Parts: sequence; C-alpha cells; structure tokens
Amino acid sequence: MDRDQHYMRMAIEMAKGTVGQTTPNPSVAAVIVKDNQVVGLGVHVKAGEPHAEVHALKMAGEKARGADIYVTLEPCSHFGQTPPCAQAVIDAGIKRTIIASHDPNPKVSGRGVEMMEAAGIEVKTAVLRDEAGQLNRAFFHFIQTKRPYVRLKSAISMDGKIATSTGESQWITGKEARADGHRYRHQSAAILVGINTVMMDNPKLTTRIDGGGKHPVRIVLDTHLRMPQSAQLVQDPTAPTWIFTGSEIDEAQKVALESHAHVQVFSLDTPEVDVEAVLKYLGEKKITSLLIEGGATVADAFVRAGRVNEVITYMAPKLIGGKEALTSVAGEGISQLKNVAQFEFVSSERVGEDLKIISVKREG
Amino acid sequence: MDRDQHYMRMAIEMAKGTVGQTTPNPSVAAVIVKDNQVVGLGVHVKAGEPHAEVHALKMAGEKARGADIYVTLEPCSHFGQTPPCAQAVIDAGIKRTIIASHDPNPKVSGRGVEMMEAAGIEVKTAVLRDEAGQLNRAFFHFIQTKRPYVRLKSAISMDGKIATSTGESQWITGKEARADGHRYRHQSAAILVGINTVMMDNPKLTTRIDGGGKHPVRIVLDTHLRMPQSAQLVQDPTAPTWIFTGSEIDEAQKVALESHAHVQVFSLDTPEVDVEAVLKYLGEKKITSLLIEGGATVADAFVRAGRVNEVITYMAPKLIGGKEALTSVAGEGISQLKNVAQFEFVSSERVGEDLKIISVKREG
Repeated sequence: MDRDQHYMRMAIEMAKGTVGQTTPNPSVAAVIVKDNQVVGLGVHVKAGEPHAEVHALKMAGEKARGADIYVTLEPCSHFGQTPPCAQAVIDAGIKRTIIASHDPNPKVSGRGVEMMEAAGIEVKTAVLRDEAGQLNRAFFHFIQTKRPYVRLKSAISMDGKIATSTGESQWITGKEARADGHRYRHQSAAILVGINTVMMDNPKLTTRIDGGGKHPVRIVLDTHLRMPQSAQLVQDPTAPTWIFTGSEIDEAQKVALESHAHVQVFSLDTPEVDVEAVLKYLGEKKITSLLIEGGATVADAFVRAGRVNEVITYMAPKLIGGKEALTSVAGEGISQLKNVAQFEFVSSERVGEDLKIISVKREG
Repeated sequence: MDRDQHYMRMAIEMAKGTVGQTTPNPSVAAVIVKDNQVVGLGVHVKAGEPHAEVHALKMAGEKARGADIYVTLEPCSHFGQTPPCAQAVIDAGIKRTIIASHDPNPKVSGRGVEMMEAAGIEVKTAVLRDEAGQLNRAFFHFIQTKRPYVRLKSAISMDGKIATSTGESQWITGKEARADGHRYRHQSAAILVGINTVMMDNPKLTTRIDGGGKHPVRIVLDTHLRMPQSAQLVQDPTAPTWIFTGSEIDEAQKVALESHAHVQVFSLDTPEVDVEAVLKYLGEKKITSLLIEGGATVADAFVRAGRVNEVITYMAPKLIGGKEALTSVAGEGISQLKNVAQFEFVSSERVGEDLKIISVKREG
C-alpha cells in the first residue's frame, strides 16, 4: 500500500463510522497531510452542517498551505446548503488533492476537479475508488436514479424458511444476528413492511441498538387501508409512519389514522399499490435508502419489479423443511430463470452462530 | 507451529489427497522423520492394500530405526486384512510415535498406543486432532454408529428455491459449483435420490470429474417400485443401483429390474420406506457415507429423522420468489423450532459466482 492509499484508507475508515447519520447526504471524510504528518481531519456529521473538507481545513489552519488533502468524494463545486468545498480547498493553499470517488451527479461530476486544477492544484483521482464506492453505494444510486436504494433483509434457515409450517418464526436466527440487523434500521432512511406483517407481528420498526440510533421512516404497503388504530405503528410516535394504499379506501379511516400527527396516508391512483409509484414518491421525499424487512409477498413485489439493490441474508445453521413453510420471497415469483436478476456476493461472515451474507445487484 | 505440528500438517495434507478412494477405510497418511529429514512417506491407497505406516516404513528401510513416525490415525493393534501396524512400528525400531486421532472404535481405541508404549516407544497423541478429525468425520461416524454419514447437498437461490414456480431448475448455480459438487459423488460411498427425481430428471448419478472418479452406489427410495425399465439408473451399468421399496410391490416388476446384474431391489417390512431401516441396511453393507442429492421430500424425511450429519449448500446470487416454487427441504417439515436440530457452520467460500456453505450437525 503506497502513501496515498494509506491516507485514503484512513479517510474511508473515518467515513464508515458515520454511515447512517448524514442522510440524504453521503458519508464523507477528509484528511490533510503535510510532510507525512496528519494536520487536519474532518467528517460530514449531518445534513445542513459543514462538509468534511471544511472541518479538516479549519483544524489544519495555516498548516493547510502547501499540504495534501485526501477526500473520499470529489469536493463540491456548487453552492448548496454550504459554499463550494473546491473553492475552500483552493483558498486554503492546498497543493495536492487526492480523491476516491467522483461526484455521482453526472451534471456536476468532474467540476470540482476542474476548478482545483484551474487554480494550479495537482489532482489525483480514483484512489481506492471501489472501497469508497461501496461506502456510498446507496447515495450514488439515489443521485443517479432518484429512487431509494433498496435493501432486502431476511433471516432464513439453510433451506430458505422464515418460519415453520405452523408459522413459528421467533427466532430462526440468534440474538447476535438480530442485533446486527438493527444496525440496518439505523443506516436506512426508511423501513418498509406489508400490512400482513403488521397484522401478524404488530411491530414497532424502531432502531434498538446500544447507545440509541436513528429511527427510519416507517412505511406500510396497505392496499385496502386495513391498518388498525391499535397498531404500534399508529400508537407509537417515535418515527413517522407513512401508509401507501390503492385508490379505493375508506376516507373516514384515513382521517382517523391521520389524527395522529406522525401518520400519513398516501393513496395511489391505481387499485393496487405499485412498487414503482412508491419508489418514485419516496425519491421525491429524499428517502435515499429503503430497508425491506417483512412480508414475503412484499419482498416478491420488489424482486419482480427488479428493484432490489442489495440482499442481506442472515442464515441460521438449521433445517426446518415443510412444503407449506414460508420462505423469504414468496408471492408469484419469477417463472423463468432467464428473467432472474443476477447479484454478486460481496461478503459472507459468521455473526454469532449464524452466517451473514451480503450480495449486491449486478448492474448493466 | 512447532515441529510436531509441522510434520503432522504434512501428513494431514497427504491424507486429504486420498479422500474418497479408501472407503470403507479411513484416509490415513504417515511421515517418518529422522534428524529433521523426512525419510519415509505413505498413504493408505485402497481397502485391502497396505496401511499408510507400512508404505512409510518400507520406504524408510533401515533409516526407520531411532526415527519418529507421524500418523494421522492411531496405528491399528489387530489383525484385519493386514497385520497390526503398531507391531510393524515396534519391529522397525521407531523411537517416537506422534498421533493425531485415536482409533474411533471404542473397542480398540488406545490399544495401538498401549502396544507401542509397552515396547518402550514414546507416544504423543492429539497433535492437530481437530483437523485430522474433520478429515475422517464420515468414517468416525460410521464406526461409532454403524450408520452411513449423511451429507445433504443442494443448490438454492438466496431465497431457498431449487426451481422456479413452473419447475425450471437447470441451472440455479453456475458450472464451477456444479463441477465442485461432483467431487462429493467421488467422495461418497453411495448417493441417494427419491423416485420423483428419477421420474422428472432421469439422472445417471455417476461421478463426472476431470480424470475420472469413483462412482457411488446409486440408491433410490421408491415405495411402490415405480422405477421405469428405461431409466438411466437401470440401463446404465456403471455403478450398482439399489432400490428400496415398501412391503407392497409388484414382484414381476422386481424380477424384471433385477434382470440387470447391477440392479437390486430391497423390499422393507413396512408399507412406507423407513429412513432408519435404510440406514441400518446400508451400514451393514459397509456404506460409510451417503450423499443425498435430490428430492425435497426425501431430504425432509432424513431431516425429520435427525439423520443429516452435514449440509452442503451451493447458493446462487439470485432471488426467484414464488410461494409455489420448490425449496430444498419440503415434505411435512418440522413444526416447532425447539425440535429443529442445530448445526454449525464450518466454512463459507465463493465457488465461481456462487457461495458454498458447509455445516455439520452439532453433537450431544
């Protein structure tokens, strides 16, 4: 590993630590190095607050003059909620900028680099690009498609079951895997389940991790607006609850549910709830990432729409069997193998006694 | 790693190379070392032929006098098809014996060690015992239970499907995974499928690996003896075909099938084919290991009987969905989670684009 990779790795590790807290912005870190001494560090903490470069430049102060800056994402070139970072880098007298990922927005990608080069700064790009890209896969997807990055999380036995033939499902996986799974709630802008899951499990869908966590917006697909007033998602105001329905619903029921300030009901134009319409709407609401946790039928709708970007599978070392036992993706399914989307396994590791397997959709 | 571990690792690697060819005997290797020079090597090649120690002692010749011998399994103390190896070690003038695994047969375990110690040889045991134990897990199970070691192999999608809802199953996994899977046929004394798999796929169930392989005995569970004369398992005499049926079958059909010299029909006393009866019979026939490859109902019967010792899962990075799509273990299933056997994941690795996951049953 050369010097540039060394400091970029440091920046990437810093950015990893903030995943989940910057939505709808990406996780970004910056490191300023002069004469092989780290003189400035920064991460983007929260949307609306300064970018990583600004924190790092402030810490470095006069030492930034003639120094190198390592940034996991191309410094921005435009005025958003903050002034352009590329200009701040120039003003501080930085000599060399090292970048991992380009700005994912095709309209401005490369502009920050151009600004800095025009000012005489040496710019090196694509250092540990793949690793940095993984860090902000969800954000990049959102910027490029205006749709949330969809993660499908499930807990299955080795034969793919999420419950026994009599419906017993608590618990297939162990407590370490369940705790690990809660981190995805913290890291996701929203969590989605089907109304059947609400009826059966009455879940709260909040994040329960040590030290507290960010709660995702709670989304329910509920064609006929069957959501009970007594549901935890209605009674508990910890996070917003958004209910998507078809076009034919009882308006009185909608009014009653919306009497709870955190509950909103969105009726689509179609009789059924359409996955594409929901994703489009969520994109407009700046929901960058969506976690699908429950409902084999709901999972199937997203799979058939080709809208699952990442699959997180916790597999328990058990065989349950049963033709009637429910699997993680049920519904209609895809009937021909040639129409099945190809994913790629990116990791597989033990979590407690279970196996955690992550795959991402292969693009193009 | 100390010196003893170093030479034992060498012996274990040698023994690994012979897995599958020694049935019903275990895979064993021996290394003779004098003054830190390897002077003799041996493996057990095939049942009925000399044991590993004999080959190694022969190669070492006079150099064995005063040397150390490393053996992956305790040298035998009794006359079987060959004279006792412990005696051969004594006669050769070996000074020190290092052993990984004890003899798994409780009746003779430790006897080889006793013989050698009584003759003044220094004996050290349990060196890399766990690694050596994995090597002969199937053999140890067979010796201790008189039942074959049962491996369940399946190829599934990430949501546990072995076919689409319309029954398309070729192929879920890639060619690397399918080739890798054939090695288990080579390593297994027998392979077992249900009659439905025969009816649907008409498989040959032979080993197709580069350089040729050992073919397992082909076993079919076929309660009502529906096996067609035209089946490849009947027409192709590459390996024996054993058909297990219930008590009520058509005797003429049995006679017709057995007109093929490699086909045998075994009718059990019970109307249904009972897993325990089949395993007992196979144990008597010195079938040390059994590979279950096809039939979700057959797999379920072995799972419910608690008779699956190892699970080999090839998982493809795909989501298929479908409530009606078949899973790897179907049938009745186990209805309560507390009755589900616990396995332990021992490995998880990429094979081509797929994931190969191995787990073994937790004992006791």
